[in-house]
Amino acid sequence: MAEKIQKPRGTRDFYPEDMAWRRHLEARWRAVAVRNGFEEVDGPIYETLDLYKRKSGEGIVSELFSFRRTGGEVDYAVRAEFTPTLARMVAERANTMPKPVKWFAMPNLCRAEAPQRGRLREHWQWNVDVIGSDSPVADAEVIFTAVDLLREMGLTSQQVKVKVSHRDVVRRILLRMGVAEDKMIDAFTLLDRRDKITPDDFARQAAALGLDAATVERFNQVARTRLRSSDDWSRIVDDFGIPESDVTQLRLLHDQFHAFGIAEWCEYDLGIVRGLAYYTGTVFEIHETSGAERAIAGGGRYDNLIESFGGPATPAVGFGMGDVVLSLVLEDRGLKPTDVAPPADVFVLAATADAQPLVGPITAELRAAGLHTRFSYKTTTNVGKLLKDATNCRARFAVILDDKAASGTVGVKDLASGEQVEVARDALVEHLRDAI
Amino acid sequence: MAEKIQKPRGTRDFYPEDMAWRRHLEARWRAVAVRNGFEEVDGPIYETLDLYKRKSGEGIVSELFSFRRTGGEVDYAVRAEFTPTLARMVAERANTMPKPVKWFAMPNLCRAEAPQRGRLREHWQWNVDVIGSDSPVADAEVIFTAVDLLREMGLTSQQVKVKVSHRDVVRRILLRMGVAEDKMIDAFTLLDRRDKITPDDFARQAAALGLDAATVERFNQVARTRLRSSDDWSRIVDDFGIPESDVTQLRLLHDQFHAFGIAEWCEYDLGIVRGLAYYTGTVFEIHETSGAERAIAGGGRYDNLIESFGGPATPAVGFGMGDVVLSLVLEDRGLKPTDVAPPADVFVLAATADAQPLVGPITAELRAAGLHTRFSYKTTTNVGKLLKDATNCRARFAVILDDKAASGTVGVKDLASGEQVEVARDALVEHLRDAI
Repeated sequence: MAEKIQKPRGTRDFYPEDMAWRRHLEARWRAVAVRNGFEEVDGPIYETLDLYKRKSGEGIVSELFSFRRTGGEVDYAVRAEFTPTLARMVAERANTMPKPVKWFAMPNLCRAEAPQRGRLREHWQWNVDVIGSDSPVADAEVIFTAVDLLREMGLTSQQVKVKVSHRDVVRRILLRMGVAEDKMIDAFTLLDRRDKITPDDFARQAAALGLDAATVERFNQVARTRLRSSDDWSRIVDDFGIPESDVTQLRLLHDQFHAFGIAEWCEYDLGIVRGLAYYTGTVFEIHETSGAERAIAGGGRYDNLIESFGGPATPAVGFGMGDVVLSLVLEDRGLKPTDVAPPADVFVLAATADAQPLVGPITAELRAAGLHTRFSYKTTTNVGKLLKDATNCRARFAVILDDKAASGTVGVKDLASGEQVEVARDALVEHLRDAI
Repeated sequence: MAEKIQKPRGTRDFYPEDMAWRRHLEARWRAVAVRNGFEEVDGPIYETLDLYKRKSGEGIVSELFSFRRTGGEVDYAVRAEFTPTLARMVAERANTMPKPVKWFAMPNLCRAEAPQRGRLREHWQWNVDVIGSDSPVADAEVIFTAVDLLREMGLTSQQVKVKVSHRDVVRRILLRMGVAEDKMIDAFTLLDRRDKITPDDFARQAAALGLDAATVERFNQVARTRLRSSDDWSRIVDDFGIPESDVTQLRLLHDQFHAFGIAEWCEYDLGIVRGLAYYTGTVFEIHETSGAERAIAGGGRYDNLIESFGGPATPAVGFGMGDVVLSLVLEDRGLKPTDVAPPADVFVLAATADAQPLVGPITAELRAAGLHTRFSYKTTTNVGKLLKDATNCRARFAVILDDKAASGTVGVKDLASGEQVEVARDALVEHLRDAI
């Protein structure tokens, strides 16, 4: 026997039951995005390597599946995130689109990382972005849309929280603490990784950025305090001696969370800075309150990205929510439905050999009329066995053909009630349509 | 201003109007597949290079975007066709799945070819396969499913035809004509390319396979004759001196086309052999009768592929239908709908500054109730301008908030009829749900 070929490490095959779940989740993502006024877009599965090199930062570029066509001159990479594609598409048409542009996408993304729980080499990600508005209404609207989805899936504000932060606020604090402006991206990267490295490594790398142990400890204390009220902002202002104007954006955002009715879903965590280089203002991650799985979603403002891709200065804010962690969270809590595949409407079967040639034509007729219709490839006329096949594909009705079929009537059995009626073959489509 | 970055050559960006069409087409593909009893599957966007090297043939392997992870040991390739993935997935679980397995998929596929009309470097392809049956019922069922889709899109049997052939029949004829068994794949490849190369090149390459000019001419005559009846089969048997048993499979298939009611959509063309190495029996392509665009779909039997991937001997048949050519064909005939994006249900606007803080909460409430709800980011209270925004997103109703909103009533304007009623804020969701 020939040797089996394995699927690539860290990827998934979607057999029907897996695919039904993916489509179910995508349908929820789409429905929530559409009712929140977003329009769907997509880009190519691969981009030029340059697109990622320009702004995403070394963290992404080192994890790309990049390649060059034999004899070609351009390096490409399988897309690892959607925001650069979106920024490129906006830059291309920015002058002709009325603002704000509200887009969502559901791309698959690939990263050449070591696969682990919640982090695979290929995943699907819901991207939701408002482009062309610097208003905190835009930040709040994308966060509302994320919450709307979580609520739709059955999660509550006791189970998950949007942890909100602001890079400008964190930058001001870090500047006060002695981090040089040109080390700021490094400092954000270090903060983003603080739960993934040992305290010793963290302290050593913080020292390299000009921070002593006491200063790091002070920052960590603030970062780990959950801020819920306006008074908390005043405390930060006092603690770090930054001007009140530095927290204005967060105060305005806080007001918008109330306007959108999602204040209970949100808390503030200045330890959140996100790993990507291009974020500018608001940043946020959605986590379980239990802290069990990785982040469910993450996003923020990227007010300079579209300009850096050759477009006009265009503020933007958005997030990505991956299918892997969300599925784990829902599964952990018994919120992942198990039977989401579409059941059949009708199963056509022949009870006699003479009626068998009619299975094809009747099946064809019902399908062309839009009915989800199955039949068996077996040549048996054992009605019991065939009805079992019908039940296996969860058909609602069986159409039973016997010797009366030649003279124009067929049996229609309701597989839930067991009730069976005789129907003229001419009236079959109409009868089934009415019944379904 | 920063330099713009271009999308990769031969790929597409899907702006909202493009994406709405892609989703519209995918929804039709899915609906038709489901009503024909197929279940959806998918695989990774990239596979090991070995998967394509084993059976697809040099034609595919030379057009792959292949890559190796820095420091890795395995070569990968972005998927260029879906059948190897499907065969790998079936081989993995063949013993536990009841046969026949009926699967469909809608993957994006990439080929590093020179882009041209109808042939891009990335396209989406509807794959429909019946696995585990060697019955001509399976061949006919996948072809019926293709026809069901074409009919669903508004095409007729006068506009498009399924051109059916059979590799065993063509092989027998080629053997009689003097082609050696070990040159058969080369002969199929040459036949597949006969309309893409010059007659001189064709004759030269045919000679290299052991065929003289007169023999090639004779084969071409037969290949170009459209066969529609059983008598035509007898003529082939006579013409080439092959045994009657060699055309039995095609005769049985012909009967099934009649059973499924698609005989008028099908014709026979022994010049069709398909380019892929793994096809074994029935092969077919769907073309416009005008011959204007490239093939709309192509497929056939691949009875040995699953075994060659380490599974048990498992006959299979299926086809792929790409989005690019189908879209061109529909567009050429005015059958591509232009407005398939979902219109908004409601647009919420404030007619007074005092009412403006209510836009957020009411929008949030309507969205959470499942209504597609929009609002403006502008701070204007110019009702005329805002109603224009509402019309631009094709909203059915406008919810107008003025000073009465504080005391609990809002205006609901039907944007088609212009009629406006006052509704209690408490009853707004219910009122709109009833009206929509």
